[in-house]
Amino acid sequence: MTPDLARCVAEAYQVALPHRGQGRVADYIPALAKVDPNRFGFALALPDGTVHAAGDADIAFSIQSVSKVFTLALALRRVGSSLWDSVGREPSGSAFNSIVQLESEQGIPRNPLINAGAIATTDRLIDGRAGDAVIDEILDFIRARAGDDGVDIDRDVAASESETGARNRSLGYFMQAFDNLRHPVEAVTGVYFRQCAIAMSCRQLAKAGLFLAMEGRDPLTGEQLIDPHRARRINAIMMLCGHYDNSGEFAFRVGLPGKSGVGGGILCIAPGQGSIAVWSPGLNEAGTSLVGALALEHFAYAAGWSVFD
Amino acid sequence: MTPDLARCVAEAYQVALPHRGQGRVADYIPALAKVDPNRFGFALALPDGTVHAAGDADIAFSIQSVSKVFTLALALRRVGSSLWDSVGREPSGSAFNSIVQLESEQGIPRNPLINAGAIATTDRLIDGRAGDAVIDEILDFIRARAGDDGVDIDRDVAASESETGARNRSLGYFMQAFDNLRHPVEAVTGVYFRQCAIAMSCRQLAKAGLFLAMEGRDPLTGEQLIDPHRARRINAIMMLCGHYDNSGEFAFRVGLPGKSGVGGGILCIAPGQGSIAVWSPGLNEAGTSLVGALALEHFAYAAGWSVFD
Amino acid sequence: MTPDLARCVAEAYQVALPHRGQGRVADYIPALAKVDPNRFGFALALPDGTVHAAGDADIAFSIQSVSKVFTLALALRRVGSSLWDSVGREPSGSAFNSIVQLESEQGIPRNPLINAGAIATTDRLIDGRAGDAVIDEILDFIRARAGDDGVDIDRDVAASESETGARNRSLGYFMQAFDNLRHPVEAVTGVYFRQCAIAMSCRQLAKAGLFLAMEGRDPLTGEQLIDPHRARRINAIMMLCGHYDNSGEFAFRVGLPGKSGVGGGILCIAPGQGSIAVWSPGLNEAGTSLVGALALEHFAYAAGWSVFD
Amino acid sequence: MTPDLARCVAEAYQVALPHRGQGRVADYIPALAKVDPNRFGFALALPDGTVHAAGDADIAFSIQSVSKVFTLALALRRVGSSLWDSVGREPSGSAFNSIVQLESEQGIPRNPLINAGAIATTDRLIDGRAGDAVIDEILDFIRARAGDDGVDIDRDVAASESETGARNRSLGYFMQAFDNLRHPVEAVTGVYFRQCAIAMSCRQLAKAGLFLAMEGRDPLTGEQLIDPHRARRINAIMMLCGHYDNSGEFAFRVGLPGKSGVGGGILCIAPGQGSIAVWSPGLNEAGTSLVGALALEHFAYAAGWSVFD
Repeated sequence: MTPDLARCVAEAYQVALPHRGQGRVADYIPALAKVDPNRFGFALALPDGTVHAAGDADIAFSIQSVSKVFTLALALRRVGSSLWDSVGREPSGSAFNSIVQLESEQGIPRNPLINAGAIATTDRLIDGRAGDAVIDEILDFIRARAGDDGVDIDRDVAASESETGARNRSLGYFMQAFDNLRHPVEAVTGVYFRQCAIAMSCRQLAKAGLFLAMEGRDPLTGEQLIDPHRARRINAIMMLCGHYDNSGEFAFRVGLPGKSGVGGGILCIAPGQGSIAVWSPGLNEAGTSLVGALALEHFAYAAGWSVFD
Repeated sequence: MTPDLARCVAEAYQVALPHRGQGRVADYIPALAKVDPNRFGFALALPDGTVHAAGDADIAFSIQSVSKVFTLALALRRVGSSLWDSVGREPSGSAFNSIVQLESEQGIPRNPLINAGAIATTDRLIDGRAGDAVIDEILDFIRARAGDDGVDIDRDVAASESETGARNRSLGYFMQAFDNLRHPVEAVTGVYFRQCAIAMSCRQLAKAGLFLAMEGRDPLTGEQLIDPHRARRINAIMMLCGHYDNSGEFAFRVGLPGKSGVGGGILCIAPGQGSIAVWSPGLNEAGTSLVGALALEHFAYAAGWSVFD
Repeated sequence: MTPDLARCVAEAYQVALPHRGQGRVADYIPALAKVDPNRFGFALALPDGTVHAAGDADIAFSIQSVSKVFTLALALRRVGSSLWDSVGREPSGSAFNSIVQLESEQGIPRNPLINAGAIATTDRLIDGRAGDAVIDEILDFIRARAGDDGVDIDRDVAASESETGARNRSLGYFMQAFDNLRHPVEAVTGVYFRQCAIAMSCRQLAKAGLFLAMEGRDPLTGEQLIDPHRARRINAIMMLCGHYDNSGEFAFRVGLPGKSGVGGGILCIAPGQGSIAVWSPGLNEAGTSLVGALALEHFAYAAGWSVFD
Repeated sequence: MTPDLARCVAEAYQVALPHRGQGRVADYIPALAKVDPNRFGFALALPDGTVHAAGDADIAFSIQSVSKVFTLALALRRVGSSLWDSVGREPSGSAFNSIVQLESEQGIPRNPLINAGAIATTDRLIDGRAGDAVIDEILDFIRARAGDDGVDIDRDVAASESETGARNRSLGYFMQAFDNLRHPVEAVTGVYFRQCAIAMSCRQLAKAGLFLAMEGRDPLTGEQLIDPHRARRINAIMMLCGHYDNSGEFAFRVGLPGKSGVGGGILCIAPGQGSIAVWSPGLNEAGTSLVGALALEHFAYAAGWSVFD
């Protein structure tokens, strides 16, 4: 029996709505701290082009670490499996920005979805090019998927990221000390800070992620963006590593691959079915949107889309 | 299009067969060290009772850590969600018997599928009972699922486990020091060493795991063994934590929840589809059957059963 | 100019006296928790047999980890430099009972003055003998030095140590798992728990430690108890490792080799000069007697005995 | 009985001489890698101005981490005890440039003699000034003590240090992320790389360190350079932390406060007696001069200067 997806979206939104405002809004940069904690958007993009949306689904937010999924896809497309020389594919098992494991594993980050691993991935994506060209490629890819040329970088957020980026620079120099960085730290973090500052709405983000649910193909244009086995593997990495040290809990509750960002956004992939984006700024202790994860749990249950049953 | 599963099994077996004998056979106890490294069995159990088998699918082997899945199911059935007071649900991110994380997380193991977590789970399953009664419950459950009363403990292996069990005892006392053990260490490890020494064939193991693919229900008897959401969540834990620090690689390659044991067995769950057991003694560096994982990778691809596409 | 040592003792006692009762009394076993927190004793033993004492210098207390110094001396005398196959000589740089470093260093504890290292040292001291014979050797050695056959084990404390000894048993099994224990864990901890439960007064303890200030010789009998270079090296280890993660602070403030115990006692060696024992139950955050360390700081300054100027 | 110090120097030199060329010469920068591994110098400076020298005692070498002792003294003189807000006083218990402990201790390095701690110390010494002014202060201080205006920075080494300084920059940004750096990373490392590149002979270095043996006073001019208790405490820190994870071994064998550098130099302080500098490029596994440590062990024994007997 096919679930009524529009109803599932509406129900998930309603169930999570009373929890709006719970959790802690990220405050390490002013541009994030001043976001209204009561924002809550939900969008489901389907392969036929339909989008079911609820709440603040058309208000742009800072996607932050959700951007790591897109740069991972682009880096795999550009340098192929050699990416795995620079970064691993295992859960990190500790705090999201910990430098400890990097030490014991000789400068190879555990996976592309923790900060060090995303920096290493961006380093490989750069591949000798100027930072602006790389950012253009990322934006062009996302705009084409979202079908919206308005997707752009929030320059204030990007500037703040750079100003407060000591820890990420430390990670960069640390990998450089292990010869696991091919470009200067400032060049790599220059791209990284900007990719994290991309602003998108739930509607745009859900559409942009749809290719991961469709074996690497853009279902609207039919274009094969990345190889099917690469899409499958990105989903596996999202499932195991997408929420730092909360990945087990997310898999346990939602049962779908996802990636969260400290801006309060989550991109969630239902393989073969669709792509979901949620946004609400209040974070749980592990840095995942509290209301967003709640809505996704209810939606996955209602739609029967958990990959585990 | 429904895949021809009998053919998928045969192909997966043939593709992996030339790799027989590769990897390192576990040698920490004599009973494991003397197993013929060329053994290789494969069995797929389907909800209608069909079993497709190949190779040494009817020879019993020591299931070792695969037993952790059954004690997890039984402990959840017995003590419910309070189990999560004693053990976490996150990937461990380090070697399978490391004591480090246990220290920094106050004696709460990261998940029920690493040694410390399995010991904590067995402690909860005991629930005040005598060790023999607990072992009987485990065996009865497995025998009923496998439809075979011949499943039993290999007493030699159990004795060897106990003799060489210093590290597991250390984990036990360590948790006791943090008040995270409700029974004496010797009582808990007494059950634990015996559950690890259960000997089963691939055919028996595949059938015994089938309830996890069927939302907690025994498809042959119709009996609801555990709640559907618990089966789903056990699958999630297997996906994220089932192969120690090789879990990411397994998810990346196979795309199905699984649990490996150092005896060379792997139980793999395809939600809604079936249950697969493979066995070949040679292990990769992370302690997972090398030939077994290869066969599963090919089978999952051929059957189109990866949960990630 | 020779300092007036009697006056130095009296002054140090008076300066520290107002701080009596500060700090936290160890409470992990009842026998320690019930000790009067206002106790404070000080004794200085000189090579000529003189003892300058102040306060509660004749009341026995549980020497706890101070015993590690005596078993280290006896183990070196018995097995010589081969002791260093089982235990290192470097500061631990982390909490006193941490198991982490033991993991990364393959079961070899960092030094003989942390719990794991003391257990390994006792294991070597046992050297195939019955536990009672080893305890007798330890007691005989201490009684002869203290010139007092009344020194004995507090049986209540010993029993409590054993009951609450899960963490030490865990350390024992952990070392056994790395083949760094030559006797069964229960045999080794059986001696260890009893050595920690030896009860002595400051007067007895100061006299018992005097051989370490005198190049390994008992200055009263002239007997060479251990080689001079071994006494020197025990002092070096006490200086670098005698107070767990507070060793730097103690060296910084007192400037003399010492060893503290959670019973509130500290044995402090002034090479070539004398031996000091202090006791006051209130501990600082690192587990060293707060008042005792204060008194030693003043005494070392007044006597001009810091080895660093 | 006063030892014949000239003879002690000559003997120590002769005993260690056959080991010249043993150990591994630091090769992370070309300027260090090309140093003749057979170089070996020894100089003892006494409070009366006498210097007893042997071998290559007048050839300049890169003092590297020995410089940390001088910046520590100058920083304490400039900012006083507030330095301890930025850096600890405990042994590190792990590899000399490990970032792990920095993570778990919130960006506060364990002591001023590991890289992170020396960077934090230099940051405090800068105290708002331009880097050149700080370097001038360091050089002026050392030149005045050495009585030789020729002491200078090796510009090639300084440039190489900066080029290969990724790990130190990483440490700097890491501390900045924890708000434990008061100046920009490049400003601090700019001074740090230059202080490490100071070139001195054993004769100069022994004379420069003499104030630490004389309670902070320059024995030739009578000038009180730092407070007596600060000199004592620097000695304590050198004893416990001067050789990274080889500090215990050095204290065990030599029994004197010392600080080693990867250039093969060691400065060693005999409180109240004199100051010793040795140099030989071959390093042991812990990065301390192998021949230098050997010579110091023999000298300390011959002179009877170990602080531990």
